[in-house]
Amino acid sequence: MENLPHCETLILEKQGPALHVTINRPDVRNAMSLEMVAELSAVFSQVEGDTSIRAVVLRGAGGHFCAGGDIKDMAGARGQKPAEGEEDPFYRLNRAFGQMIQQVNESSKVVIAVTEGAVMGGGFGLACVSDMAIAGPSAKFGMPETTLGVIPAQIAPFVVERIGLTQARRLALLGLRVDANEACRLGIVHQVAESEVEIDEFLGHAVERVRQCAPNATAETKALLHRVGHESMSGLLDSAAEKFALAIRSDEGSEGTLAFMQKRPASWAASE
Amino acid sequence: MENLPHCETLILEKQGPALHVTINRPDVRNAMSLEMVAELSAVFSQVEGDTSIRAVVLRGAGGHFCAGGDIKDMAGARGQKPAEGEEDPFYRLNRAFGQMIQQVNESSKVVIAVTEGAVMGGGFGLACVSDMAIAGPSAKFGMPETTLGVIPAQIAPFVVERIGLTQARRLALLGLRVDANEACRLGIVHQVAESEVEIDEFLGHAVERVRQCAPNATAETKALLHRVGHESMSGLLDSAAEKFALAIRSDEGSEGTLAFMQKRPASWAASE
Amino acid sequence: MENLPHCETLILEKQGPALHVTINRPDVRNAMSLEMVAELSAVFSQVEGDTSIRAVVLRGAGGHFCAGGDIKDMAGARGQKPAEGEEDPFYRLNRAFGQMIQQVNESSKVVIAVTEGAVMGGGFGLACVSDMAIAGPSAKFGMPETTLGVIPAQIAPFVVERIGLTQARRLALLGLRVDANEACRLGIVHQVAESEVEIDEFLGHAVERVRQCAPNATAETKALLHRVGHESMSGLLDSAAEKFALAIRSDEGSEGTLAFMQKRPASWAASE
Repeated sequence: MENLPHCETLILEKQGPALHVTINRPDVRNAMSLEMVAELSAVFSQVEGDTSIRAVVLRGAGGHFCAGGDIKDMAGARGQKPAEGEEDPFYRLNRAFGQMIQQVNESSKVVIAVTEGAVMGGGFGLACVSDMAIAGPSAKFGMPETTLGVIPAQIAPFVVERIGLTQARRLALLGLRVDANEACRLGIVHQVAESEVEIDEFLGHAVERVRQCAPNATAETKALLHRVGHESMSGLLDSAAEKFALAIRSDEGSEGTLAFMQKRPASWAASE
Repeated sequence: MENLPHCETLILEKQGPALHVTINRPDVRNAMSLEMVAELSAVFSQVEGDTSIRAVVLRGAGGHFCAGGDIKDMAGARGQKPAEGEEDPFYRLNRAFGQMIQQVNESSKVVIAVTEGAVMGGGFGLACVSDMAIAGPSAKFGMPETTLGVIPAQIAPFVVERIGLTQARRLALLGLRVDANEACRLGIVHQVAESEVEIDEFLGHAVERVRQCAPNATAETKALLHRVGHESMSGLLDSAAEKFALAIRSDEGSEGTLAFMQKRPASWAASE
Repeated sequence: MENLPHCETLILEKQGPALHVTINRPDVRNAMSLEMVAELSAVFSQVEGDTSIRAVVLRGAGGHFCAGGDIKDMAGARGQKPAEGEEDPFYRLNRAFGQMIQQVNESSKVVIAVTEGAVMGGGFGLACVSDMAIAGPSAKFGMPETTLGVIPAQIAPFVVERIGLTQARRLALLGLRVDANEACRLGIVHQVAESEVEIDEFLGHAVERVRQCAPNATAETKALLHRVGHESMSGLLDSAAEKFALAIRSDEGSEGTLAFMQKRPASWAASE
């Protein structure tokens, strides 16, 4: 833990193979500030090289995941005039958020989102880049930007990747809010828990599944999934076969095969 | 209304922010004729520059949405032999339909389809490019082309974009018909109404949501959604951040922010 | 039948317009051996030119579809050291499987998978390239590779194409197993049968639908579907309109139109 960055807006806690990141600005329903964007980015950079962390759990304090962009930052950007040849402060503010979302999306760790209460705007975007998302019964998802005269610029593209154009166009263009069950039906989240207790049960199961899967193999698989659709299938499969050969000859591949034959858990699956 | 084109096959009626377009060839279950294709195209061209229109509602007269291509046009094309160096009349007929579908797909207005009865072939294709589709209880969707020895050439690609390859290959290759509930499960439509009254209720809600959303921001968001998957995510997000900065400094962005702080509806959300 | 290749691991039987291919290594839950990969590839090559075959039905003997890669082949590859400048035997083993999957995916015939019991690893990949998949009540789907320290290299990309990134990342990164109902909800399969009898009923209906659809039109439609998303929509629709004109002027197009007007089944739809 000593290497994790100090954070003002996040609470960090390591439990077994998972780093729990709690967004902690409950008085503003965990609105996403520039500081929070920077801290989330720093945390994800830091865990990238930490082999003791295999999953990152994102959750909000006080019953909300994240209600969207912070209004004070917006007001601050409005007050600034871009200097000659400089980027508009609104551009920088918006793009910085999107860069953090891209980083979380491509993290080599398994990202698990626990979504409750407001999951709006930027919070919705963040939920959409998780590998596994659980919704609590209070969760509400939406992109209210167009009702405010602006656009969900860094969010809508990830919503399209998450649930496809057909559902995204309805949600974004009508500025709709959907509840946990509809979010699950649309594919925004994977599971709906009916209580706090069930949230913890689903989360515990997901982390236990992460423990069963070899860390490097999981990271390689995640990177592979992200390449689909962005290059030719034949080229991708050629490259994937090379990675398969490396994986099966690696320490993990040897240990996994041996453990299977010896009918014992592999080293990475053992409880600490 | 005076600037809207005169139409033989369509009834046009403006209600609040929405233009209602009723396909009106009930004796042939609203089969899509070349004339209808041209008229739909002309209407969508005309509304593009009309700021008083924010949504287009597509519906069929007489209980059917549209049963597919018109048999008389087909017979006409069969009678013509393409002259030396000229395109086959069947090519022109087919491609003209596809061009209209592309235009509706990319319209800057919110397109709402109310689907009832036959939603087949070309009618199915048209439903698949709406931003929001409501199915009535009688709706049946399908691509019967291969049972007639031809191919759903301008339709199947939009069905793949609508519901993905997995479901599209089953529907197209088995020439299946699906009802309203299955269409909703597959993502062809977003909502199933159980009665005429409920259709009107869902439609009224959708138009009311369009009213709540700023018109330019909605158009910019729709254009953004259509770009996802066709260019690099980083480049798209850079461009989107520029559009965000422009939007928030625009009249809409100023009015939206002000209205939010003053706890009043924004100017665009007021009933007429 | 005389032209079909002799197979050690498959049982081939022609029934009406369908070739039934039964994976027949029930003692190892139909594990996918190199021999089986070669035989499946040979069968799909052979049927490509056989106009009497319009559908291929894939099923496993003994209550399992296919439990994944064969452990003996794996052990064999581990024993071999790649010679200087040669490909790793693991690379060849893995890539050969992926090439067969690509071939099945792009077969011009309608591929129907009947999935029961273990549909794991390579078996899961094979199910994911069918045009129509039926699950029996016992079916279990999953990619257990990462729990063994390796990666689902030739499988995961087809799972992403089948069910999208959002669901694929959860399944692959948590190494989950899902049952028939969840597989249907996710879009891995299209229908869940509750009994053997219902499997046969669903299968019979699918083959009957294949019979109703013109063979060449079906093959052209399938090729068209596979192009969506890999080239510009306008270019694709131009090409599709050319194919439409050819199809409607072909023997199938003439017969289909005539049969429709004469209110009789088209020649290809007649029972043998």
